[in-house]
Amino acid sequence: MGSGKPHSEIQRFPAEDVYNFVEAVLLKSEVEEQAAKVTARGLWQTSLRGVDSHGIRLLLHYIQGVRGGRVNPQAHIQFEKTSATTGRVDADHGFGHAAGMLAMKNAIEMARESGSGQVAVANSNHCGSMAYFALEAAKNDMIGTAYTNASPNMRSANATTRFFGTNPICMAAPMSREGPFCYDGATTMVALNKIRNMGDQGQDIPNGWGADSKGKDTTDPAAVSQLLPMGDYKGFGLAMIVDILCGVMTGMPTGDQVTDMFRDSNSEKRHLGHFFTATRIDAFQEASQFKDRLQELADRIRQQPRQDEDTPVMIPGDSEKASEADRKEFGMPINEAILSDFRKLAEELDLEMFGSQS
Amino acid sequence: MGSGKPHSEIQRFPAEDVYNFVEAVLLKSEVEEQAAKVTARGLWQTSLRGVDSHGIRLLLHYIQGVRGGRVNPQAHIQFEKTSATTGRVDADHGFGHAAGMLAMKNAIEMARESGSGQVAVANSNHCGSMAYFALEAAKNDMIGTAYTNASPNMRSANATTRFFGTNPICMAAPMSREGPFCYDGATTMVALNKIRNMGDQGQDIPNGWGADSKGKDTTDPAAVSQLLPMGDYKGFGLAMIVDILCGVMTGMPTGDQVTDMFRDSNSEKRHLGHFFTATRIDAFQEASQFKDRLQELADRIRQQPRQDEDTPVMIPGDSEKASEADRKEFGMPINEAILSDFRKLAEELDLEMFGSQS
Repeated sequence: MGSGKPHSEIQRFPAEDVYNFVEAVLLKSEVEEQAAKVTARGLWQTSLRGVDSHGIRLLLHYIQGVRGGRVNPQAHIQFEKTSATTGRVDADHGFGHAAGMLAMKNAIEMARESGSGQVAVANSNHCGSMAYFALEAAKNDMIGTAYTNASPNMRSANATTRFFGTNPICMAAPMSREGPFCYDGATTMVALNKIRNMGDQGQDIPNGWGADSKGKDTTDPAAVSQLLPMGDYKGFGLAMIVDILCGVMTGMPTGDQVTDMFRDSNSEKRHLGHFFTATRIDAFQEASQFKDRLQELADRIRQQPRQDEDTPVMIPGDSEKASEADRKEFGMPINEAILSDFRKLAEELDLEMFGSQS
Repeated sequence: MGSGKPHSEIQRFPAEDVYNFVEAVLLKSEVEEQAAKVTARGLWQTSLRGVDSHGIRLLLHYIQGVRGGRVNPQAHIQFEKTSATTGRVDADHGFGHAAGMLAMKNAIEMARESGSGQVAVANSNHCGSMAYFALEAAKNDMIGTAYTNASPNMRSANATTRFFGTNPICMAAPMSREGPFCYDGATTMVALNKIRNMGDQGQDIPNGWGADSKGKDTTDPAAVSQLLPMGDYKGFGLAMIVDILCGVMTGMPTGDQVTDMFRDSNSEKRHLGHFFTATRIDAFQEASQFKDRLQELADRIRQQPRQDEDTPVMIPGDSEKASEADRKEFGMPINEAILSDFRKLAEELDLEMFGSQS
């Protein structure tokens, strides 16, 4: 899936060196070893897949959370099984990645024994990209889903203020001739930083992406202070489903009562909730047959006649697979803002920075 | 939730009389008794909830399917348990409502025993509104989800032709002081008949709803021959998730290979797939606490400041609850086109038509 040449002009670095640095920063910040490894792997894999918004750029924010008291670096994250196929994880305000992966691994274990597994996580923090967890199920020939609530950012129809977060929905399933299908999408139309980027380039945004501080729809990126749901009221409904699983089911705060990632202080605990499921494919049909059938479906979609011959028809996950191939070969692009964060962390923690890709 | 006066000028009929007529038409058409009752109840409840597109207007189409050979009125619909929490239903080309309800009832039973249940349905037909099934789980203090694939109608980004159907996503969950929360939405932006209705009224449609026969986006309702996904490529991804559960997992046709509801002949079997899940709430927290918490969340959403003071801020299912209260009190509105279908059926089957609401 590699393009044959690097995708950007940004300076690139050997992917493994970047991983080692991220892990070292977490370990040097007194993060418990298993949590440090799982979190480093999650941030790094997400950047490798090209999802820069949820990748290594979050490292400094996470460390600030540890220093401020929001994130418990030595959390005692515990799983409690509540039936043959359900369970709860108390994240003890530790890293969301660590709590989420413990939850998914238990969901997979229950699915192996009883067909399916569902685990809700309470008292958690930001857990990065949901794909990290759902892909773990797909690797085990299962269908995985992953959900989390998030900072209040989404306006509902006819309201004036932010309510739900970007509350993503993620599902992964294995295919026979390539990495898993993986849909991982916010229930807002776009992320706020996409709108900010268009503003920086002097572009207006389409109708239906954002609203101003009074709740009015706007096409002016600078005026946007809240996001609009995908498909209008439909996306708001999907965001509510996500919060029913993540906030209501877990006993955590819901909607506009969720602690904000950036607006609130780094000392304030977030009490986020996540929800994970794993379903054994071979409880429905032979896994190899499923993977062939999903591969055939994916190929059929990609082979559809195109409006623009030069633009591929894609399925969810295609651009992430292309990024992963590209970044494994040519190194991970890291922009100046993130490099500057990393240099600061290296100095503070007495760590060596990695060098650029030769 | 009733408005205090009827919502429309269309002639109204006592809801129970309408139910009895729909059931009688199915029974007189040699439909097996249990299937007839479950199907009649599903169509009728859906109309009562104001979702006219998926209610009793489908009766004639269903009977034509029986007469044409598409729908097996004496289907031997069978459930096979494949693990503690998973199972398959072979619908034997019978009514989708009957196959779906058998699947959901088994999912609920497995959830009662083991925390959760998931059932895939193969060789099925149109099953009406997905809410009918998900609400059954909510009635049992469970979270229910329901999915189905559908006639090819949705264009993906940069393609020229229809691929997935409206592939709906549905989730229901119980609340403490009113009927269940219920989101039941197509993954297209709108349904085709909404576009046709706007055309009839001389209105243009917004960008992002439909495309013409060449796949180009259009705002002219008359030019629309395919639907666009909600939230652009995001809705296409969600539709693919639905088809992975309903088409790939069941071994049924997927995407553009699904038999079309109307374009294909009534003799052609549809081989539709559905997927249902039930999850016991008390495996995560006390059900009464969950219901209170969801009620509080719903109330908080509805009490948000409004842009337009006269327009409520709603949650999924609010308009359906209002319709149900209204139609129970003032009778079910049935338009002339449907009345004419019903008169024809009454004559052919030697049945008495119901009279209008006094």
